[in-house]
Amino acid sequence: MLLGDQTPQYNPYLSRRGNSMRIHQGILQEGYNQYHANKHDEKSNPHGIINLGTSENKLCFDLLQKRLTRPDMLNIEPAFLQYPDWKGHSFLREEVAKFLSDYCCSPKPLKPENVVVMNGCGSLFSALAATLCDPEDAILIPSPFYGVITEDVDLYSSVKLHHVPLYSQPRGSDVRPFQLTVDKLENSLKEAKTEGLNVKALILLNPHNPLGEVYSSEEMTGFLQFAKMHQLHVIVDEIYMLSVFGEKHTFRSVLSLDGLPDPQRTHVMWGVSKDFAMAGMRVGTIYSENKDLVQALDQLGCFHGVPGPTQYQMAQLLRDRDWLNSEFLPENKRRLKEAHEYLTEELKKLDIPFPHRGAGFFIWADLSKFLKEKTFAEELCVWRCFLKHRLLLSCGQAFSCASPGWFRIIFTDQQHKLQLGVQRMKTALEELQGSLVPEDQRTTAVELKTSAGRATRTDTKTTDECKETTLKSSSAQTKLENTRIKTEPLSLADENFAILNGQSNMHSESLDTLIGALQKQIHSSDWLEKHRPELAAGVDPTQLEVFTDLLEKARK
Amino acid sequence: MLLGDQTPQYNPYLSRRGNSMRIHQGILQEGYNQYHANKHDEKSNPHGIINLGTSENKLCFDLLQKRLTRPDMLNIEPAFLQYPDWKGHSFLREEVAKFLSDYCCSPKPLKPENVVVMNGCGSLFSALAATLCDPEDAILIPSPFYGVITEDVDLYSSVKLHHVPLYSQPRGSDVRPFQLTVDKLENSLKEAKTEGLNVKALILLNPHNPLGEVYSSEEMTGFLQFAKMHQLHVIVDEIYMLSVFGEKHTFRSVLSLDGLPDPQRTHVMWGVSKDFAMAGMRVGTIYSENKDLVQALDQLGCFHGVPGPTQYQMAQLLRDRDWLNSEFLPENKRRLKEAHEYLTEELKKLDIPFPHRGAGFFIWADLSKFLKEKTFAEELCVWRCFLKHRLLLSCGQAFSCASPGWFRIIFTDQQHKLQLGVQRMKTALEELQGSLVPEDQRTTAVELKTSAGRATRTDTKTTDECKETTLKSSSAQTKLENTRIKTEPLSLADENFAILNGQSNMHSESLDTLIGALQKQIHSSDWLEKHRPELAAGVDPTQLEVFTDLLEKARK
Repeated sequence: MLLGDQTPQYNPYLSRRGNSMRIHQGILQEGYNQYHANKHDEKSNPHGIINLGTSENKLCFDLLQKRLTRPDMLNIEPAFLQYPDWKGHSFLREEVAKFLSDYCCSPKPLKPENVVVMNGCGSLFSALAATLCDPEDAILIPSPFYGVITEDVDLYSSVKLHHVPLYSQPRGSDVRPFQLTVDKLENSLKEAKTEGLNVKALILLNPHNPLGEVYSSEEMTGFLQFAKMHQLHVIVDEIYMLSVFGEKHTFRSVLSLDGLPDPQRTHVMWGVSKDFAMAGMRVGTIYSENKDLVQALDQLGCFHGVPGPTQYQMAQLLRDRDWLNSEFLPENKRRLKEAHEYLTEELKKLDIPFPHRGAGFFIWADLSKFLKEKTFAEELCVWRCFLKHRLLLSCGQAFSCASPGWFRIIFTDQQHKLQLGVQRMKTALEELQGSLVPEDQRTTAVELKTSAGRATRTDTKTTDECKETTLKSSSAQTKLENTRIKTEPLSLADENFAILNGQSNMHSESLDTLIGALQKQIHSSDWLEKHRPELAAGVDPTQLEVFTDLLEKARK
Repeated sequence: MLLGDQTPQYNPYLSRRGNSMRIHQGILQEGYNQYHANKHDEKSNPHGIINLGTSENKLCFDLLQKRLTRPDMLNIEPAFLQYPDWKGHSFLREEVAKFLSDYCCSPKPLKPENVVVMNGCGSLFSALAATLCDPEDAILIPSPFYGVITEDVDLYSSVKLHHVPLYSQPRGSDVRPFQLTVDKLENSLKEAKTEGLNVKALILLNPHNPLGEVYSSEEMTGFLQFAKMHQLHVIVDEIYMLSVFGEKHTFRSVLSLDGLPDPQRTHVMWGVSKDFAMAGMRVGTIYSENKDLVQALDQLGCFHGVPGPTQYQMAQLLRDRDWLNSEFLPENKRRLKEAHEYLTEELKKLDIPFPHRGAGFFIWADLSKFLKEKTFAEELCVWRCFLKHRLLLSCGQAFSCASPGWFRIIFTDQQHKLQLGVQRMKTALEELQGSLVPEDQRTTAVELKTSAGRATRTDTKTTDECKETTLKSSSAQTKLENTRIKTEPLSLADENFAILNGQSNMHSESLDTLIGALQKQIHSSDWLEKHRPELAAGVDPTQLEVFTDLLEKARK
């Protein structure tokens, strides 16, 4: 993994494509990798990263565990262990069609033969990009948007996204921030054509990630009409359709419309990752009346197959309407609402603005006031400051947001984690606020923190320093960063830390590298024992505590 | 699906790439799709297709079902339902490393961090092609070989295979048919370079599919040395490593060698599809010491993820050495051997030559004497004749075999299916033998069959006719076929069939199209009831019986 400030080198063994895949890591992946290397756990790793950056619903594990361990789930039939129909076993496609007919309120029963099941919506985006577009073709997508889609359509399929920028400040006839309108779609399409792009499709997210917006059927119809007029395919991602908990908005699936404007070019995506809180189950579905598309997807299905037993289990869940309607869905909604309320209250206390929405697992929050200047380089510094405080969030630029300073904060984690996350966020924001004080009035972060009653030595790094302690993400970002580093010297607090630490090279290593080194050493030598006293002399108790924890962990 | 003799049309909604994926179907896929549309089942569909074409082990379902439904398999932990490490959960990578260390007899313990788990070896081939090669680069592969690899490396990754042809007749210093030698590798590499190809890697299958060959460690070392000298990556596919049952050969994994010639360029593949008889479980693994490759594969892992609960179950299986060593593996080997013996005896009775081997699920048989002339067009006719008799086999050209007339016959199906398959094979071969009689001595197939005591009206189509009743596969094959059709008029038997049938267009429809039409009609009208009397008049009892079966099936 790319950790510390090592710059990844071109590897002569891999192809140019392989190197580019390996070296290119977006911000979301960087955070995700760091989190995976150092997950918070109340008991075994209390100083690990709290992840309010990855959109997962962790509120309903108890309900799912109970259901997924009922005896009906333990069924193995010969067909489950044999090569399947790559579009999905017919029993599952039938259940998906019934499920979508009911929960999307389609006017007519949906047909199983229009359903394709793959191992997740990322796979579906990849396969759709390959079958609807040729390499270097483009797809329109309003931004901000769930950033991983960029890689989903590009890595294998070499399709590029063309952004339709939405802005935090309403413009023209807009009545709300980040409002999507047909005019904006028209303008972006024109622009793309001027740039010589061959635009083949439009991606719409509804409910929207990260905006939390739910589009009315009138709005959606307008977007679909626009696409029809320009002969664009539309991929409508409705993966959060059952995660709408706000009272104001009612979600309407495009499958509920009385006739789609262009059914041969409209493809509706859903999956169990979000609405059934099972991102790890790897099941996504597409519904399309375009039979040739279904057939083309079939050809790619062998790369995106779902295990037979998993297909069976998912069919069992979808057909268990008692459990869905009486247990899971209402309780899930209640918990979503409760967690959402908690986070919104906390954000209000912190005087952080956010659009009030009631869908998805996240709040789209405006942290621009914590930026020294309104640039994406500064936004990245704020993001790194959170990560330094062992809190993973997603910053707007990872979602190609046009306005800097916005962050997506996930609220669907267990209460104690969410609380700890909010706590760490506060600490980070206080530090950031401190660094906003003009240069001549600045004191060290240590003093600021002590006065706030929360000082620990590991908290003394400033946002400037964090630029160095985590890896460079994409080359564009690296460029931005280097510019900042040139103009801003390291602060006194940073030097203090390095001196107090007693190991001059340690401040440039991330916690993850440390764990890696520890685990290696602990198994082969007495390195840690030897270094312990050296470490104990002159460091504060918290740091020692972290070290002791790591020692325990590494010994396991 | 492409059935009947409809030629697929270019669909203006899809991209060129999407159309090319949709329209291009290899012979293996064609057969696979036909089988999936009409699977044999003793009770519900006795006239369905017997599949001795797809390499699956169906001999051990009882053992697997028992093991996979033990209570330990029903465990759900939070991490299983969350986004995983895309290289595989660490608990599974650890088990895979231990498992491979033991069963490949590696001199040192293999390392979990060198393991990548994906949903099947097809996915691994795709991801390896993308990371080791740039588009249009080439990979050397000795032919014949498991034909699906062609699509695996091409569909997403646009990498081409360059064949190293092996021949049925030993040449030069060869001591056995289809012998792979370093000389042949050298010659093919030279040839590829002359053609301007950028060859990046070599794929080696050991045990070999379809040859059933097990290479000695001396031979393998020679191949690896060749690759090292030319700086080629080697993907060593050892997916049949535990399915070696012959007494003559002992399998040696390259992971057992004392040091690989070029460890940074050697990548060893395994999976549960074959050795654990679970093709439907979608789990494949790669072992590579090249850390940058592992990292690049990680980036593509999101398209090839395995569900958390499946990863857990596979780890449970791999660590259950009692079950593996005392139950599954010895019993599996016993059954493999028994089924192999049955088929070899039958082939001997039929005087069909085949190399004696003891690995894999198949016999590589020489049916060239049933070809009217030694061409691949004739081979395809023989393949279609089998399919007409509702027996799916794989013909040599689907594996890019350089000599026409070879077929891969799977023996790892349940006894009654294997027997029925052999029965249908005999019938088909008798028909083929009949058509080998010179034109002036020919009688209709009906008479031949009646004299053989096995005649049914549905068996009267000749090999010539079968060209029309199944779809065209790749364009190259279509060309071959058209040539044949031009030179050979339809036989009398064909015309007879069409007249007797009473529905002039029906003879050009396959059984699958029929089922499709039936199912559609039966649910919406009284079409079948109306057509039944018309059909009954003038057709033989067998055909009516098939129709009655279909009627029952369609009503369900």
